[in-house]
Amino acid sequence: MKFLRFGPLGQEKPGCVDAEGRIRDLSAHISDLTPETLTKSTLAALSALDTAKLPVVDPDVRLGACVGGVRNFYAVGLNYARHAKETGNPNPSEPVLFSKSTSCISGPNDPIILPKGSEKTDWEVELGVVIGSECQYVPEQDALEMVAGYCLINDVSERSYQIERGGQWIKGKSAPNFGPIGPWLVTRDEIRDPQDLRLTLSVNGVVRQDSSTDDMIFTVAKIISYMSNFMRLMPGDVIATGTPEGVGLGLDPPQFLKLGDVVDLSISGLGTQRQTVVSQPA
Amino acid sequence: MKFLRFGPLGQEKPGCVDAEGRIRDLSAHISDLTPETLTKSTLAALSALDTAKLPVVDPDVRLGACVGGVRNFYAVGLNYARHAKETGNPNPSEPVLFSKSTSCISGPNDPIILPKGSEKTDWEVELGVVIGSECQYVPEQDALEMVAGYCLINDVSERSYQIERGGQWIKGKSAPNFGPIGPWLVTRDEIRDPQDLRLTLSVNGVVRQDSSTDDMIFTVAKIISYMSNFMRLMPGDVIATGTPEGVGLGLDPPQFLKLGDVVDLSISGLGTQRQTVVSQPA
Repeated sequence: MKFLRFGPLGQEKPGCVDAEGRIRDLSAHISDLTPETLTKSTLAALSALDTAKLPVVDPDVRLGACVGGVRNFYAVGLNYARHAKETGNPNPSEPVLFSKSTSCISGPNDPIILPKGSEKTDWEVELGVVIGSECQYVPEQDALEMVAGYCLINDVSERSYQIERGGQWIKGKSAPNFGPIGPWLVTRDEIRDPQDLRLTLSVNGVVRQDSSTDDMIFTVAKIISYMSNFMRLMPGDVIATGTPEGVGLGLDPPQFLKLGDVVDLSISGLGTQRQTVVSQPA
Repeated sequence: MKFLRFGPLGQEKPGCVDAEGRIRDLSAHISDLTPETLTKSTLAALSALDTAKLPVVDPDVRLGACVGGVRNFYAVGLNYARHAKETGNPNPSEPVLFSKSTSCISGPNDPIILPKGSEKTDWEVELGVVIGSECQYVPEQDALEMVAGYCLINDVSERSYQIERGGQWIKGKSAPNFGPIGPWLVTRDEIRDPQDLRLTLSVNGVVRQDSSTDDMIFTVAKIISYMSNFMRLMPGDVIATGTPEGVGLGLDPPQFLKLGDVVDLSISGLGTQRQTVVSQPA
């Protein structure tokens, strides 16, 4: 099943995609897709609904992030071998974890807003994992059972804030609209192998990232198992699992987003996003 | 006003402290103290209630974290001059930001749970700030107006996870019960000067930290203003503003928490916490 959230910012309703690709309204069956509702039993009950009987939604409606009320937005750094290389870093010996502010989360096609004075805002297509079960100390072989579903994420990053402003990456990962999530939360049963997904990202039609999750240094299962040794993962937690090579920082010379740029990204089975780069609202 | 949350874990009700220091039940007036309800207008309406008319609560009730549903638990590193020195670091030139998982949040007197195999779990008494107004790009002179209130926090930290396990501090800051918050959310009007508060922490009765917020390198107002350049701060966001000297890592030789240790901490006007150190539940 492909779940989504549609409607104006802050007033999103839950929906899903039917067999013909139309958006259907789920709001008669669930209040929202949030940490409180993203449980296995709720998702199973929703998946059993006959989507053909649900109200059809205007296809041009705004899409929100496919998960609401997120309480932890985690991310893994340097998790693709060729990306680690392009940033001048060795492969990490264990996963590098950081977080993004939950207030950075935006809809898949909402604009990317350049922070005031930003000169180094960069793109990062990533496979997102949404946790469906509370867990701690999960063995790697059981870890994928903790997943509610997968989604597409652009882990937008301001490199000078991240690297040049004194310690800890969160500073460059958290500006409003630095976290487009969606269009869909695709339930786990629809993704045969999370380590065999193609990721692409282009800027103004020029392909910048085109890779596969098989280049991940640490698999999704390994990441979940590893993280669960350090924190209790909760339903609705989002994990961005790292970006492949081809970010702006890795180009020679480095190249960053400018006003008016259009970013398109996709992951096989998880849909597409398109963002236009804009300045801060006055 | 001193707000709090009482009752079993996950079922906390909102309350407040009356003029005689008794706990009063606020649940007839507000559902919970969360990001949705921690607005200036709600807090003002609650502060206008006659607490003497509210139901009295058993003084031995468990206290939960004084804020529920937290969506961002931020922290500032190396923000006291003498603490930076004891860790062998120079004073940072701008605030060091990191975050703790929201799933680490616990009540003020809940146990500290040692992660499996942990040998370097440490204490950090800190002044906590709870945001009351959504804000971005706030000038320093307006920043304290964004504060709903203050609270006591123990920023419990596993030093080997934080420092020796590959990048980014979040790994050592996020285990369950590594974030005791409370007992009270004390509204801003009760704290004359957040830079003139005494902080103390003892382990098994031996004083380890005894300092003042006047040793902060970056003031609360500066921290809020600075952070708001990098992320949008939201009501209910919690910011731990750094710890003074006297952590276990800074002792010679370093000394960390062991099973059965009792940690007592306090900040003037913000109450006290007591935690006993326990092992993982079986």
